[in-house]
Amino acid sequence: MITYPSKLLENAINELSRLPGIGRKTALRLCLHMLSQPEPAITRLGQAIIDLRQNIHYCSICQNISDEEVCGICGDSARDASLVCVVESARDVMAIENTGQYRGMYHVLGGKISPFEGKSPADLNIESLVDRVAAGGILEIVFALPANMEGDTTVFYIYKRLKPSGVRFSTIARGIAVGDELEYTDEITLGRSIINRQPYEASLNGI
Amino acid sequence: MITYPSKLLENAINELSRLPGIGRKTALRLCLHMLSQPEPAITRLGQAIIDLRQNIHYCSICQNISDEEVCGICGDSARDASLVCVVESARDVMAIENTGQYRGMYHVLGGKISPFEGKSPADLNIESLVDRVAAGGILEIVFALPANMEGDTTVFYIYKRLKPSGVRFSTIARGIAVGDELEYTDEITLGRSIINRQPYEASLNGI
Repeated sequence: MITYPSKLLENAINELSRLPGIGRKTALRLCLHMLSQPEPAITRLGQAIIDLRQNIHYCSICQNISDEEVCGICGDSARDASLVCVVESARDVMAIENTGQYRGMYHVLGGKISPFEGKSPADLNIESLVDRVAAGGILEIVFALPANMEGDTTVFYIYKRLKPSGVRFSTIARGIAVGDELEYTDEITLGRSIINRQPYEASLNGI
Repeated sequence: MITYPSKLLENAINELSRLPGIGRKTALRLCLHMLSQPEPAITRLGQAIIDLRQNIHYCSICQNISDEEVCGICGDSARDASLVCVVESARDVMAIENTGQYRGMYHVLGGKISPFEGKSPADLNIESLVDRVAAGGILEIVFALPANMEGDTTVFYIYKRLKPSGVRFSTIARGIAVGDELEYTDEITLGRSIINRQPYEASLNGI
């Protein structure tokens, strides 16, 4: 166990090394870099982290990250409110928006159904999606979840819940390699997969 | 260019991606992780970064990172004040202390002489070392700088400056592979290299 010459340094290393992918050596390197930078720049960094966590909001409609009560996408009347794309996390919304190919709305689940991680449907933003569909105006649900067991389970659960509403279901085209995460897909492939979305029932044929 | 759903998020990503080795994708991943953590934990992280930069001190004697005016090593009367190990940075002090093999003092230069990076002797803590030697009581200077051109240049410059004082010079043993950085050396090799330090003049034979 290395002893550090300063409690301040040790404390910063302890906190930084709690982040994923940052070990104690990397944390020390980051701290020594911070000490070599002008003080206002590092105060800005620390404050940005505090502000992010303390002041972030989630859109009351789609549950995406937002600075407002209703996010820019849900508040945009030029977008197609009859189309809702269901994704796992805020970064999937960013990835799809970045393709410029989609003009509908979103619903962010905040995870996938995963018995291994103890995530049940109640832990996800599924009830709010059911409420949105029940409120009317939504004609189609586009599933954009990863093509693995947890993603498929989640899609199937939501499909079963919403089937009685008479809404149409589709999934993004499987041009994306099975098992890959959305965020690492190139924009063209991801954009195409939104355009060429398939009726959900068609993807059940293999089961 | 990805557009972010929140200014707070964008701001945090901008600040984090200024750190070495952290790109915008990694910064986004870190931010989403922070949002998934309890608020007090993330406030603590941000505050630790701010405190580190705002409140850090450097020892007035050896220039090492310290919480006090004089660091724990310089203030330790049980250590051998006649022996001063000259290192590039605070992390080299940590690496050597971690071996448990050295009971002398340190002097942290804060870099190496490097014309490529525009670092001249005036940018390093060399004058304060000259003053320490002039004040008397120091019998031996141990150079523990990397064995590359910049390290050798720095050692040679300090050697020339301090030669008239009659102090003895040594360099840590070259059991460490030439070109390697101190911080990645295992403790046993680094500890041995302190014990088996050689008179500086001996290392000049090859020149």
